[in-house]
Amino acid sequence: MEPLDLWTTHLPAHLRAHGPRIEPRDGVGCLMVEDTVVRRFSSLAKAGAQAKTFAQGASDPEGRLRDLDADGVWGEVMYPNLAFFCCFHIRSPELQIATARVYNDWAADLFIGASERFAPAAVIPVLDVAASLAELERVARRGFRAALLPAHIDTRPYNDAAYDPLWTAAQDLGIPLTFHAGTGRSQTPAHGPGGAVINYVVTVGGPMETVAYLCGSGVLARFPGLRVVMVECGSGWLAWVLHAMDDAYREHHMFVRPKLELLPSEYFRRQGAVTFQHDPVGLANIPFTGDRCLLWGSDYPHPEGTWPNSQEVLARQFAGVAAEAMERIVCRNAAELYRFRLPTC
Amino acid sequence: MEPLDLWTTHLPAHLRAHGPRIEPRDGVGCLMVEDTVVRRFSSLAKAGAQAKTFAQGASDPEGRLRDLDADGVWGEVMYPNLAFFCCFHIRSPELQIATARVYNDWAADLFIGASERFAPAAVIPVLDVAASLAELERVARRGFRAALLPAHIDTRPYNDAAYDPLWTAAQDLGIPLTFHAGTGRSQTPAHGPGGAVINYVVTVGGPMETVAYLCGSGVLARFPGLRVVMVECGSGWLAWVLHAMDDAYREHHMFVRPKLELLPSEYFRRQGAVTFQHDPVGLANIPFTGDRCLLWGSDYPHPEGTWPNSQEVLARQFAGVAAEAMERIVCRNAAELYRFRLPTC
Repeated sequence: MEPLDLWTTHLPAHLRAHGPRIEPRDGVGCLMVEDTVVRRFSSLAKAGAQAKTFAQGASDPEGRLRDLDADGVWGEVMYPNLAFFCCFHIRSPELQIATARVYNDWAADLFIGASERFAPAAVIPVLDVAASLAELERVARRGFRAALLPAHIDTRPYNDAAYDPLWTAAQDLGIPLTFHAGTGRSQTPAHGPGGAVINYVVTVGGPMETVAYLCGSGVLARFPGLRVVMVECGSGWLAWVLHAMDDAYREHHMFVRPKLELLPSEYFRRQGAVTFQHDPVGLANIPFTGDRCLLWGSDYPHPEGTWPNSQEVLARQFAGVAAEAMERIVCRNAAELYRFRLPTC
Repeated sequence: MEPLDLWTTHLPAHLRAHGPRIEPRDGVGCLMVEDTVVRRFSSLAKAGAQAKTFAQGASDPEGRLRDLDADGVWGEVMYPNLAFFCCFHIRSPELQIATARVYNDWAADLFIGASERFAPAAVIPVLDVAASLAELERVARRGFRAALLPAHIDTRPYNDAAYDPLWTAAQDLGIPLTFHAGTGRSQTPAHGPGGAVINYVVTVGGPMETVAYLCGSGVLARFPGLRVVMVECGSGWLAWVLHAMDDAYREHHMFVRPKLELLPSEYFRRQGAVTFQHDPVGLANIPFTGDRCLLWGSDYPHPEGTWPNSQEVLARQFAGVAAEAMERIVCRNAAELYRFRLPTC
């Protein structure tokens, strides 16, 4: 959880008026970028209160380590809060990358030095690929071991060859690219009755589509060292997407370009992963997905996350899963992918 | 498969120039509505040839019954071809409903009288709910036992109370409303590398969202006799969507409106179904979905369908499924839902 004034104090002077900031609108505190209201708090006080509520683990490395220890969690890939909600909505490529840099520096200063158990994901906007590339190389030098890209990029989808330099760099640097549900498109496309339920389902459509783009277009085939992770999207849909991609590839072969050496699903099993916190369907579908492309996460410190009861939630939902598969899914897969040096396993 | 000149000969005179028609554009035959090219054939001749290839079963009831018999299939819910691709793209509510009426009359004249083994779905556009209602009542009198609505309706989603009269009528008439993958939005949102694979995954997002809209908004709760079916979308995602809806309902309870008496998934299990032709993931997930909301279909006469090898495909994919569940999924569920009078089961 970033300080509310992070960007108004750290962006280059000429960008500060347009970057992320909390402003009152009709007496309500709003997170704004450029002229867009990204999020409304019920009151200005609540914006401050939210920052405070999360403060213990969200912006205090010592408190966070204590919380992880209490929950039996060794390490974690961490995602931004304000930057998550606003960065990819920014239309100006210059402001977008500058906003990401400020976040990345804050996260590196606060967390990377504090413990190797923290692997914050660097925010990497993709409107200007040359700038994305420069920022990815910069954050690698600063010690980041993960990067966050928008799950959607409607103006230039991920099957565009313009991204090739970025895939090359991520592969060469050994930095997994993560695509978080709810990024790059509206998080609340549905309004009115049932909105909360509908939007939860709809926003996961983002990572599902991203899997199809990266596998079907040949990106993973052409960059065999590239690792990609769909984040906080559950895992229960993965078996179906893998099957559907292969079905389309075989049954619509007359329309399929490019032809691939392997089936689309095989690239994902080799180079992809999805994260979940509580998803019995995904675990039941291990016979279809294998256990290498599943990563458990607690979603700490969110109220819908499993903290501080992660061990109970894990014991319950892994009851029917082989011990070796469980150890992979809750520990080894993530450790290998994000280079966590574990004390034991 | 409708005759290519169905609408240019049957629409009211003042609408014919704007309705569905095949017109050359740069020497290529195009299916057009209003000023929109909906589908391009590689040549004008191919448009005619496609009509011919499909002719045997697609527009000849006797030939179709012979094909069904040869494939061991008793009855089927049938969907349009040209009307499927173009009707929901029409922007004029008057033209849209008139286009649907012409199709519905053609399908009724040709198939409903020919055999009760045919249950064509009447096309019901929803831009003008009063007109939809009138057409639904009209087609019920003409003997239709199923209706086709667009899976997406971005201008006024299905959680809008404006549709209540339509839900009431469908419930009272006992006509299941079906939502077919690829209707109401572009069928080819992705272009370039991997398009065929990506679009197959993306278009199924339509029915997934429709399930969330109908369950989460309380439509199924308020209309307990309404039956809804998601068509040609596979079934392997359903277990996850049911789980995700309930998860959202419970974990985001502070945002959830309306509160429901049952969990969102319970309404779908009670009133909903999805159709698939070949989906091992969906069958493996019966412990999550139950066997009442799965319907098998052959996709006859499409090349990616299972005809004429349906019995082999069924034997293979149901190998691990209980005989009673199989009998429900390939026969009884559909018979009960669409009022097929079966000779045996």
